[in-house]
Amino acid sequence: MIQTFTIEAIQRLAELGMALPQDPPPPAGDYAPYRLLNGIGFLAAQTSGYDGSFQGQVGRDLTLEQGQKAAERAALNALTRIYQALDGFERLIGLAHVAGHVCSAPDFFDQPDVLNGASRLFNHVLGERGKHSRTAYAPTQLPHKITIELEITFAYQI
Amino acid sequence: MIQTFTIEAIQRLAELGMALPQDPPPPAGDYAPYRLLNGIGFLAAQTSGYDGSFQGQVGRDLTLEQGQKAAERAALNALTRIYQALDGFERLIGLAHVAGHVCSAPDFFDQPDVLNGASRLFNHVLGERGKHSRTAYAPTQLPHKITIELEITFAYQI
Amino acid sequence: MIQTFTIEAIQRLAELGMALPQDPPPPAGDYAPYRLLNGIGFLAAQTSGYDGSFQGQVGRDLTLEQGQKAAERAALNALTRIYQALDGFERLIGLAHVAGHVCSAPDFFDQPDVLNGASRLFNHVLGERGKHSRTAYAPTQLPHKITIELEITFAYQI
Repeated sequence: MIQTFTIEAIQRLAELGMALPQDPPPPAGDYAPYRLLNGIGFLAAQTSGYDGSFQGQVGRDLTLEQGQKAAERAALNALTRIYQALDGFERLIGLAHVAGHVCSAPDFFDQPDVLNGASRLFNHVLGERGKHSRTAYAPTQLPHKITIELEITFAYQI
Repeated sequence: MIQTFTIEAIQRLAELGMALPQDPPPPAGDYAPYRLLNGIGFLAAQTSGYDGSFQGQVGRDLTLEQGQKAAERAALNALTRIYQALDGFERLIGLAHVAGHVCSAPDFFDQPDVLNGASRLFNHVLGERGKHSRTAYAPTQLPHKITIELEITFAYQI
Repeated sequence: MIQTFTIEAIQRLAELGMALPQDPPPPAGDYAPYRLLNGIGFLAAQTSGYDGSFQGQVGRDLTLEQGQKAAERAALNALTRIYQALDGFERLIGLAHVAGHVCSAPDFFDQPDVLNGASRLFNHVLGERGKHSRTAYAPTQLPHKITIELEITFAYQI
């Protein structure tokens, strides 16, 4: 199969100066990075990573812009996981839902703006297949002091 | 197709003095209000809206009863989104899961009671098809100071 | 149908000195304990129960080890619910996703370690079918002061 859509997606990523990371953050416990079952794909937590680049609360430790960058990086890691799960993007019918948890200062309420950093990357790279419904949450803390955690589902051709 | 079930659902809503809102709160970012994929429907965050009627923490800014009203309004908005997604309720096989996030004072623990305001509306209006599993969460803050955020999945006839 | 896999799963549970609880915590509101729709199963909140054995924040009210025990108990309750939903485990294709909410002290960040208490039980008892993707959250409070709340999806043969 000629992986037309996959190539196009990777080109759109390259236009942004980005590439799929070869080593997204590994699972932090005894679980799988993804599951494919009955046409629905489930990703484990996608984060901006544990290298300390992004850590703590948006609105206190990080600015809105830094939060958006963290969300974008989490989305980039998610793209790699979907690519790995489906051996490319051809079988991706589309993203389904993105639940975005933004570690937030107690007086910060612009989580949707932060998460647009992830949503815009999905929309740009995957086009129609990148569309997703979304929920945003504003916890004051997340595991391992991470700033962004995305819980993502997608649909694939069986 | 005669939309029998849809008409009955709207009648049950009218008995409660309610109607499907014509303009539920729009998406707060670069995402879709819903997604239909492989028989599973995903709704973006359903809230009690941003008009300030319901804002802040249940148990501090709002009473339990006000929280229930906020949950009911979020459920009402969800019904409109499902109606829009499926062009009525005929193709709705049933609600699947409702994850209910209740913005809560630090000493308030009755989130399930608050969310019954949503669950009872679903059960009443949709009958058997309104049944759902549920999880309840108690964050101290939510985006844009909203009080209730529902994350909802449902199943539909392909 | 000879319930081979079910019997094996229950034997693996017995090897750990455990059995499926006959009376897992009932729903805390007007919702169903589970839903089966289009091949995807949805469980209502699985908790460590309301008997007070496990209550409050890990890292303050409970140790890491106690949190792991609470997570294990929630997973055990989940196994009963899946068993009830599918009349055994034969039709279980596999767990899909586990979202684990760990009630946490403000300076506790090892939620993944806590949730391994649940994941290891699933992996041990269900083998390949127990694999799951996972997300971990660190709220400072949960409904009814519970310590662990698991939101679980799975796939089943229609």
